[in-house]
Amino acid sequence: MTYRAPIHDMLLALNHGAGLQAALKAGHYGDFDGDIASAVLEEAGRFATDVLAPLNRIGDENGIQLKDGGVTTAPGWPDAYQRWIAAGWNGVSGPEAFGGQGLPMAINAACTEIWSASNIAFGLCPLLTLSAIEALDAHGSGELKNIYLEKLVTGEWTGTMQLTEPQAGSDVGALRSRAERAPDGSYRVFGTKIFITYGDHDMTDNIVHFVLARLPDAPPGTKGISLFLIPKFLVNADGSLGARNDIFASGVEHKLGMHASPTCTMTMGDKGGAIGYLIGEENRGMLCMFTMMNQARLGVGIEGVGIADRAYQQALAYAQDRKQGRAPGSKSAGMDPIIVHPDVKRMLMQMRSMTAAARTICYATAVALDVAARSTDPTVRTAAAARGALLTPIAKAFSTDIGNEVTSLGVQVHGGMGFIEETGAAQHFRDARITAIYEGTNGIQSIDLVTRKLGANGGASVWALLEELAGIVSHVEASNDPAFGTTGVKLRDALGSLERSSKWLLERLASAPTEALAGATPYLRLFGSTLGGCMLAGEALAAKDITDGGGDPARYVTLARFFAENVAVQAGSLERTVIDSAESVISADAVLLA
Amino acid sequence: MTYRAPIHDMLLALNHGAGLQAALKAGHYGDFDGDIASAVLEEAGRFATDVLAPLNRIGDENGIQLKDGGVTTAPGWPDAYQRWIAAGWNGVSGPEAFGGQGLPMAINAACTEIWSASNIAFGLCPLLTLSAIEALDAHGSGELKNIYLEKLVTGEWTGTMQLTEPQAGSDVGALRSRAERAPDGSYRVFGTKIFITYGDHDMTDNIVHFVLARLPDAPPGTKGISLFLIPKFLVNADGSLGARNDIFASGVEHKLGMHASPTCTMTMGDKGGAIGYLIGEENRGMLCMFTMMNQARLGVGIEGVGIADRAYQQALAYAQDRKQGRAPGSKSAGMDPIIVHPDVKRMLMQMRSMTAAARTICYATAVALDVAARSTDPTVRTAAAARGALLTPIAKAFSTDIGNEVTSLGVQVHGGMGFIEETGAAQHFRDARITAIYEGTNGIQSIDLVTRKLGANGGASVWALLEELAGIVSHVEASNDPAFGTTGVKLRDALGSLERSSKWLLERLASAPTEALAGATPYLRLFGSTLGGCMLAGEALAAKDITDGGGDPARYVTLARFFAENVAVQAGSLERTVIDSAESVISADAVLLA
Repeated sequence: MTYRAPIHDMLLALNHGAGLQAALKAGHYGDFDGDIASAVLEEAGRFATDVLAPLNRIGDENGIQLKDGGVTTAPGWPDAYQRWIAAGWNGVSGPEAFGGQGLPMAINAACTEIWSASNIAFGLCPLLTLSAIEALDAHGSGELKNIYLEKLVTGEWTGTMQLTEPQAGSDVGALRSRAERAPDGSYRVFGTKIFITYGDHDMTDNIVHFVLARLPDAPPGTKGISLFLIPKFLVNADGSLGARNDIFASGVEHKLGMHASPTCTMTMGDKGGAIGYLIGEENRGMLCMFTMMNQARLGVGIEGVGIADRAYQQALAYAQDRKQGRAPGSKSAGMDPIIVHPDVKRMLMQMRSMTAAARTICYATAVALDVAARSTDPTVRTAAAARGALLTPIAKAFSTDIGNEVTSLGVQVHGGMGFIEETGAAQHFRDARITAIYEGTNGIQSIDLVTRKLGANGGASVWALLEELAGIVSHVEASNDPAFGTTGVKLRDALGSLERSSKWLLERLASAPTEALAGATPYLRLFGSTLGGCMLAGEALAAKDITDGGGDPARYVTLARFFAENVAVQAGSLERTVIDSAESVISADAVLLA
Repeated sequence: MTYRAPIHDMLLALNHGAGLQAALKAGHYGDFDGDIASAVLEEAGRFATDVLAPLNRIGDENGIQLKDGGVTTAPGWPDAYQRWIAAGWNGVSGPEAFGGQGLPMAINAACTEIWSASNIAFGLCPLLTLSAIEALDAHGSGELKNIYLEKLVTGEWTGTMQLTEPQAGSDVGALRSRAERAPDGSYRVFGTKIFITYGDHDMTDNIVHFVLARLPDAPPGTKGISLFLIPKFLVNADGSLGARNDIFASGVEHKLGMHASPTCTMTMGDKGGAIGYLIGEENRGMLCMFTMMNQARLGVGIEGVGIADRAYQQALAYAQDRKQGRAPGSKSAGMDPIIVHPDVKRMLMQMRSMTAAARTICYATAVALDVAARSTDPTVRTAAAARGALLTPIAKAFSTDIGNEVTSLGVQVHGGMGFIEETGAAQHFRDARITAIYEGTNGIQSIDLVTRKLGANGGASVWALLEELAGIVSHVEASNDPAFGTTGVKLRDALGSLERSSKWLLERLASAPTEALAGATPYLRLFGSTLGGCMLAGEALAAKDITDGGGDPARYVTLARFFAENVAVQAGSLERTVIDSAESVISADAVLLA
């Protein structure tokens, strides 16, 4: 079962649910021509189907090998990576001055979904390079940019992000890797990092490591962290590769999933110290990390969407093919495909609608980040930046929770075959699991949403968003289309729950912050479900308005309705959980430590 | 991290939540002495901790090997199985006439939780033997019982259940294995079965296969299926083992989890036909299967409870040990264990409370089945049988869904370490996944609940149960204990949702059955959440009443409150889904087949 990019769904989500068309019309994208989206996605879909998807299972089965400090990837992977570079996919949103195509993040977001769906372990490598590009572009010196940026943008070299140490995971400030100033202005870095994705591999001839470390005189905690660029091979003045630097993969993890993506322990300093170059200012490394964070978190959210869609496509094909039992009321002698059973339809609709909601939330986040970067109007930029910041933790956590739920449903649709590895459904289930953990666990995303995003401006970004969403719901109600069923009332109720919960949390943030923290996870779910429900309804309305026959309104109205009546409908219960359950969380020690 | 049976929780659930004490007092258990439960569970817990738990990871890592038609289990497994037999654990609830201890199912249910928690792949073997015992005891001839029953009860030989064929999974009636009558009254069986758990292994010197097959003149579908006993080795008149029978493991599956439990393809008839003996009557094999079904489904539900508790214990220990960040408001310099974070507390409480709710539902099912079998009053027996039949699909599906959710939370609590196999959290997550699928997928359980159990007697068993649960809620409200928070109102609302949904489904079963089928899965979740919430509240009330200091009411009140305010609170949304979403499911083809 291969993967086909759902171009029609993606374009509807991008243009209408996520607001790309509106932003284009308002001039926020400058001279970018929105019409090319379709062609780019078609082409990306072809590359994914032809080159990446066939390697997904091979990667899982073969995994990677570490030998003598060097990692070998699965058969066919280095070749596929070379084709990836040659086709220009690494530079879709990279700066044009350094060989990128300079396309908006929104386009790259859709492409990232395609890479993640076809081969999530492969797509993870360029996702990290993208973060490295962003840090270097924003904070690096001109000299460092001249040497490294184009190679990273084209993908000729890949990038790694090295934060985690055994005692410093979610708590980055606890890291101990140390950097010493060298007389020539460079640094010597010593220490051990763990969980370093693509820390070593054989797909390119150099790797550019971005490493957080601490200077000897640095203050404690996150205020004493600096960011260093450490190439695997030093680069000579003429651009050729020089000596091997003192940074090596000393171990690889045996993981639940993502077998093809090497997760390395990196050791620096066994041979006198890894030669590193400062990015930005000393002790301001966290600032550089924050630059990358929005995009990286959005990227992981999109991984959730991609793996969910892959699982859905596979489950749908299986349900159309596998025959067991008969349709309700059928008198025929033979068996029917299992897709006739209402419970199987429910599972597939759950998969499809949750994936669609998460997709639009992620794309909308990318549009907001684009507008924040591209609009010429500072007021628009500021509002878009706040919108992007608000949506980012939702895009990350809601989409990856959905990635886990949808891949689990994918196993379930397959019945007993879902538990057998050769079917492939189990791989998606295993691969998806990490997305809710890395780049900030989903619990941390929820806390970020409540404390930094909701709390930041007294809820202003939330109220602005709620007003927009209420406008969509009014249109649904005004449409008087019976095919929407109870969508209007479900979404209006959900908006009420979201508003009341937001106000309650804001009040508690001031008066009893622990109570606000206790409700963070159900609040994020409530937010994502309500937002996704309204956005899908908006897409369905747009599909009805598209008069060239390409809108396919029946499909999108039913999809929006299903989500509203089965997922967004949980808002009322989630509101009660946010508001009523803090005490049961706070008094948990009576149970847990008894 | 080893496993310790939570004896205190288990006894409270068994005696009070599940109603064992009340049934004992009413005389429904005859002369059974309820006081021995504690001693049995303590002893079972010791055996599990000492013998079974240490082999769990070894089994996962080593898996099993098939060579020349014979399966080798993981190192240490055959020895542990011999200790299992010697300690008498196989016969806890087996008939006393054949070497069993004749203890109630309720006691065996608690033991099964302990086996599943300590080593789910090991515990699965005796679980299947138990089904075989039940079929043979209920339907086998005296001669077959004399030869095979005691060996199965003691565990000297194990049993398999062979239903599935490639084209016949959920739809058992589609099976094609064929049986021919032999002149001596035995049969020759030919065919291929798949997904046969412990179809072959090296832990005992014989295996007794229970195989469904079709006679040449059998009617089509489930009405033409017969059940045969097919020993791996024929048994001589003196009880010694004779010739190898013509049934062989021809393949083993490579699975997501349960690596230590061989899942075999079984081939019969390559050497003239497997010699089989009829159980019950020709063409009445499905009747024999139904005998086993309640107990087997309950057993799988208990697997969900066990694996959930194992994941919880491991996550709790990790959260107490792992230091990251600081408690909200803390000014200390050092890091705190992550259990201080409200979001981590929430995850652990979610794990603990859902596990506890599922446990009590499973135990209550066992008590109902016990009373149905043991009471001297036919009216009591009939009502208990209906109760047991109603609870069985909930025990199976709700508990295994919870097993999946809790093991996933267990991975999440571990953060990045959860994705690393050596941590062990991922194994529980992988192992749990099959429990929602085998012994009837959870979708099939939901359909059984709605069509056969709710629909069977016009809802009478449901109304009787609701009345009982309303009594518990009244006691919670009357207690006026502020520690219950909003438990009373949450549970009363949930009961209302369950009652209205039940009535709506009953009406639709008659008028529009497809709409009832569309709501089956959310209905089962609504039922389980409401039932579990009321039962946990009942346990908390009982803990308050226990005056010897062993009740620990604060712990159980907080636990019940957490469940009511965070899980049972979903009832309102689930009711709306059951009642409002049928059309969005039924019209799904507009989306799925577009």
